[in-house]
Amino acid sequence: MALHKGRVTLPSEEGFVAETKEMMERWGADAIRDSDGTKLDEAVKSLDARIYTAYFPSRGHNEFIEQHMEECPQIFLLSDFCLARQETLEIEFLKPYYRDQLEPDYIHDPKHYWQVTDRTSGDLVPASDWDIAEDEHKVMIRGTVPWHEYTVSFLAYIQWDPVQMYNHITNDWGDKPHEIPFDVKQPHSNAFIYKTMKQWLEQNPEVDVVRFTTLFYQFSLVFNQLGKEKFVDWFGYGASVSVAMLEDFRQEKGYALTAEDFVDQGYYNSSFRIPTIRYLEYVDFVSRFVSAETKKLVDLVHAHRKEAIMFLGDQWIGTEPYGPYFESIGLDAVVGSVGDGTTLRMISDIPHVKYTEGRFLPYFFPDVFHEGNDPVIEANGNWLSARRAILRKPIDRMGYGGYLSLAYKFPRFIDYVEKITDEFREIHEHIQSSKPYSGLKVAVLNCWGALRTWQAFTVAHSLYSKQAYSYYGILESLSGMNVDVQFISFDDVLANGIDPSLDVIINAGDAHTAFSGGEVWKNAKLVELLREWVYGGGGLIGVGEPAAVPHQGRYFQLADCFGVDKELGFSVSTDKYFHTVTEQHFITADQSGYAFGESMRSVYALHGEVDILEYSEGEIHLSANQAGAGRAVYIAGLPYSPENTRLLMRSLYYAAGREQKLERWYAANLNCEVHAYPQQGVYAVVNNTNSPQRTVVYDGDGNSSVVELGASEIQWKPIH
Amino acid sequence: MALHKGRVTLPSEEGFVAETKEMMERWGADAIRDSDGTKLDEAVKSLDARIYTAYFPSRGHNEFIEQHMEECPQIFLLSDFCLARQETLEIEFLKPYYRDQLEPDYIHDPKHYWQVTDRTSGDLVPASDWDIAEDEHKVMIRGTVPWHEYTVSFLAYIQWDPVQMYNHITNDWGDKPHEIPFDVKQPHSNAFIYKTMKQWLEQNPEVDVVRFTTLFYQFSLVFNQLGKEKFVDWFGYGASVSVAMLEDFRQEKGYALTAEDFVDQGYYNSSFRIPTIRYLEYVDFVSRFVSAETKKLVDLVHAHRKEAIMFLGDQWIGTEPYGPYFESIGLDAVVGSVGDGTTLRMISDIPHVKYTEGRFLPYFFPDVFHEGNDPVIEANGNWLSARRAILRKPIDRMGYGGYLSLAYKFPRFIDYVEKITDEFREIHEHIQSSKPYSGLKVAVLNCWGALRTWQAFTVAHSLYSKQAYSYYGILESLSGMNVDVQFISFDDVLANGIDPSLDVIINAGDAHTAFSGGEVWKNAKLVELLREWVYGGGGLIGVGEPAAVPHQGRYFQLADCFGVDKELGFSVSTDKYFHTVTEQHFITADQSGYAFGESMRSVYALHGEVDILEYSEGEIHLSANQAGAGRAVYIAGLPYSPENTRLLMRSLYYAAGREQKLERWYAANLNCEVHAYPQQGVYAVVNNTNSPQRTVVYDGDGNSSVVELGASEIQWKPIH
Repeated sequence: MALHKGRVTLPSEEGFVAETKEMMERWGADAIRDSDGTKLDEAVKSLDARIYTAYFPSRGHNEFIEQHMEECPQIFLLSDFCLARQETLEIEFLKPYYRDQLEPDYIHDPKHYWQVTDRTSGDLVPASDWDIAEDEHKVMIRGTVPWHEYTVSFLAYIQWDPVQMYNHITNDWGDKPHEIPFDVKQPHSNAFIYKTMKQWLEQNPEVDVVRFTTLFYQFSLVFNQLGKEKFVDWFGYGASVSVAMLEDFRQEKGYALTAEDFVDQGYYNSSFRIPTIRYLEYVDFVSRFVSAETKKLVDLVHAHRKEAIMFLGDQWIGTEPYGPYFESIGLDAVVGSVGDGTTLRMISDIPHVKYTEGRFLPYFFPDVFHEGNDPVIEANGNWLSARRAILRKPIDRMGYGGYLSLAYKFPRFIDYVEKITDEFREIHEHIQSSKPYSGLKVAVLNCWGALRTWQAFTVAHSLYSKQAYSYYGILESLSGMNVDVQFISFDDVLANGIDPSLDVIINAGDAHTAFSGGEVWKNAKLVELLREWVYGGGGLIGVGEPAAVPHQGRYFQLADCFGVDKELGFSVSTDKYFHTVTEQHFITADQSGYAFGESMRSVYALHGEVDILEYSEGEIHLSANQAGAGRAVYIAGLPYSPENTRLLMRSLYYAAGREQKLERWYAANLNCEVHAYPQQGVYAVVNNTNSPQRTVVYDGDGNSSVVELGASEIQWKPIH
Repeated sequence: MALHKGRVTLPSEEGFVAETKEMMERWGADAIRDSDGTKLDEAVKSLDARIYTAYFPSRGHNEFIEQHMEECPQIFLLSDFCLARQETLEIEFLKPYYRDQLEPDYIHDPKHYWQVTDRTSGDLVPASDWDIAEDEHKVMIRGTVPWHEYTVSFLAYIQWDPVQMYNHITNDWGDKPHEIPFDVKQPHSNAFIYKTMKQWLEQNPEVDVVRFTTLFYQFSLVFNQLGKEKFVDWFGYGASVSVAMLEDFRQEKGYALTAEDFVDQGYYNSSFRIPTIRYLEYVDFVSRFVSAETKKLVDLVHAHRKEAIMFLGDQWIGTEPYGPYFESIGLDAVVGSVGDGTTLRMISDIPHVKYTEGRFLPYFFPDVFHEGNDPVIEANGNWLSARRAILRKPIDRMGYGGYLSLAYKFPRFIDYVEKITDEFREIHEHIQSSKPYSGLKVAVLNCWGALRTWQAFTVAHSLYSKQAYSYYGILESLSGMNVDVQFISFDDVLANGIDPSLDVIINAGDAHTAFSGGEVWKNAKLVELLREWVYGGGGLIGVGEPAAVPHQGRYFQLADCFGVDKELGFSVSTDKYFHTVTEQHFITADQSGYAFGESMRSVYALHGEVDILEYSEGEIHLSANQAGAGRAVYIAGLPYSPENTRLLMRSLYYAAGREQKLERWYAANLNCEVHAYPQQGVYAVVNNTNSPQRTVVYDGDGNSSVVELGASEIQWKPIH
């Protein structure tokens, strides 16, 4: 039985009352939830727990939407690139898509909304030069230029909720009906949503918390002709489109968005793309609309004296917890899936809610809970990565999701969760709501800024990406590091200058992505501001291709700060003499080796004053440079690891010129970390690994002591 | 003593008559030359050999040029990038340069010819905002924008011939006078050059061959403040500049070139840069001028019944052996330094001369010929790489350079050269002037085309470059392969279409370089021509970043042909399912491993029909794709090796759809090669290694036999 009770949400399901009761006691759960595909028994609902019920305002009512299929959500999609070999071309535009998910919109004039594009010249094909064969889902183009490639951008209806579709396929739900989504923007759907919500609230008095799982618009998730994921972008606004939305946008903004504004050459405005002003205006427009509609739901919930909580996932598009309209919604809480430290901070840092909740992994689904697999392994990895972040900024509650009956068959897992739910409550008892000690104030600078707080370098929630992991590691390292972190945009800097209280600015990413910044680095004003700040004593850290755009003989536009630049092949005639490694350096004091992930090629020093800290294969992968009163550190890539967390931490303190402050609330052993809560008079020493560790620990005055920790242990100690 | 005599040029020097005679006999030399820094004794000149004498028309007469220092060659140079921290800035523009080499031109109005540039904004600073302190070699700028970087582009005189400077420093020539170069474009110099040449011709009747070492304009070679090489570009026209040249250009073309046309953001129009039309017009303008002036010298030489031979190196700028004006010069021969197979072919393929000569390595200088070093190692490597190319297209003569007295101290070296000079003559006796069997016709497509035949991917003659070696290997492989090779430019293709007799086109290089092509790939016409050709049955090979420019959703603009594209980070949301390797494939039949050099990141397949031949680290490095009736092969990089030569050869035959023709005059063992001369009824089987080899050899009908070869052996066999 749990030592304490509370802060834990337990999933339950039909016919599982006794076990639910047992699990409540063991995990100290004070709330019970259903999941997608499960329902709670009446007997469970009457247990001594708050009842969370998932509510899907925009799906689960096929009887309604089947009468109004023109109110399904829409999306602009791109056909395959098709090569013309003569002067006519037929494109089966639906061919690469999953027919169960999508239906072309032939209701609204395709000649008006669709686009046929010559992808070789980049020209639009006039609507008079193409026709549609609706029965075959074909576009026939006349007057094509042989050997040019063409695409069709078409508007489609989404006829199967992608999340239910995913769950349906993953769990083999067979002939269970496909849930058809509907669009709050449409008249019948809008009326139906609020009417149904009211009825439901009245009919479900035992529900304490309405868990919106979720709201109106699904992030972009499109399947291919084989029923497999074709495109996933957790930030994509693609499925918020409708003719009504487009028309309202045009009315308000005075210009019309086109199919190309959404298909974006096939990149669909991935958050790695530098956002266009048109797309940003659309994001803002939809966010405002979604926030207003969500507020209406929340107000209804509150009117029935229930709490409204939003699941940050699935149809979260437009809610933007870090956006300008979120506060106006009035949500009581946000719950999100915890994949690691970064996603934990993404949840726990959300402002304007009473509490936050993390849904931990693994989800109780048969893909993990099957014979021969040990779910404790995933649970332990998940907890250790999350705990680092919890110690910086805790979520208020934790929970799980899926089929409790599945998890129940794994007693070691049940034991393990009992242990970590206790540990979670213990953390809260020690910390209360106090702020941990921070040694530095760090900002991550990119195109998105605060809107994508803890959301940079992300394709989808905790999904591995070859292009991203060498940068995502920065966030993961920071999520549990004793520094304050904020996310700022180039627009912020250009409009307001640089916050003088910042110690270090990080710019990281592949060139021409939204995270590095691309063309914005040709803006002299931006470069001026950064240089003035660095030379005035600020710290700068660049990872990968920072401030990179080819311009006026430089690739890194802050090459003067870094003292290094990247060879693009244009200056191979210039001799490069500097490659002597500085063997002893503050930044590399703890490093026994290096792992730069995808790393970066061909970075070289501009002069001999640069401290080259790692040089191999004729390239620099780590360097530090004094620039006026400030310092700049270059790192080729930083996948997450304890070693790289230490490397980043030392780089931050060095860049900030605060080397002498590093050993404050600090563990010499890089597998351990120290978090101090001066207000509460306690500090925690944590072992982030699964083996025992011994470490020298430094207190706030730099006094050291030795601490021995068991595997994964956390020790709480009073501040003397 | 040599079995045969002839085709060999021997360097000699003062006081070395007996040894010269001995060496002549052993190496079968029929010509004797002097070198930079050596002179021939009268006794040597009277030996039974043709006498080559180095002639330097534009240096070696300090007594003249010291009276006309305003006639030294000029060059536009760029200062360091200097950061303004306030509204004035002083730039010591000469600081990073070698003062012994350079003197700023204060004679011609700097306000007219120099430029001060804001490298942060890219704007020119008005001449009214800066002044010069000549005594301190400083530019003082007013009204600078704080935190912008500025540069000064200045016109300088070159006061020390860079080649003599290099030789002077390398050989520690002490207080030997610095040879001051002079510019044929200037009135006194022009008159002096022809007058002196005439006198010299009259005074040196014993000379048979005037070896111009070399002509008028040095390739770009600039030293830094420490007297070390700062910038070297074997193709650079930078040192052909003068106020007279600029003025004449303006008169003819109707527009003026500026300093920036030459300093080019500090890249100085490296041949890796996509050439601007202005720069190409300048190259053409100078070439025409140099050719006309050179013709005058050659005519003088001929009038004295001597031969005129040009050394392809040092001051070769403007002669352009593959350019439109070369034929008009009327040179008898070209001699060049043989670094490898590629440079050998660069010499031996030169048209419009009676013969070509290769100067082999090592050069007889103390950097190689010193105690403890074995010069045979370099000589052997040099010979084996050159021999492959000689067997395709022989140079007519071979020779050496430097101090014979140094080489003479290394008897093993003397023995080795005796062996290879015999082997060289033997090749000629077998081949005569007949053309070897070629299985395919291959073109290398880039911005430079024929003008840079065998000169692509080159910084300076055989100089290693990290950015180039993974592409240069293509040329080196081709130089000794049984295919015909030509170099074509995008302009050629756009103007004349694709030669239908071609079998395979290769496009290779880093994106945005002149070798890949950059922006030209947005030209729909070019893409049409290539696609029409490939889909019609042509073969395409892409190495590195072929046809690469971000445009309309693709990076490789011929991604449809290759079936692969490179992920730039914008389409990370699109699932990439294709990574199954085709284990058995014609292209990889001989490969036991792969070495792609610098390789390429993040290449992925567009569809499942692509034959992925190598996949590692989540990337494709080798693939083949059917595109209509044609085929396209992608290779991540191809540094030179016997294995990669075989990989390229198989790729070529596969791309051309001629797999069944591969085993014709072919050695199964990839360390060996076969070259057949049907006209002469002979073929050669060569061992390209230093260890014995055994190989199956296929004749022209595909009949096989086994051949055993000693280390480096070449065996000649009759065609039955």
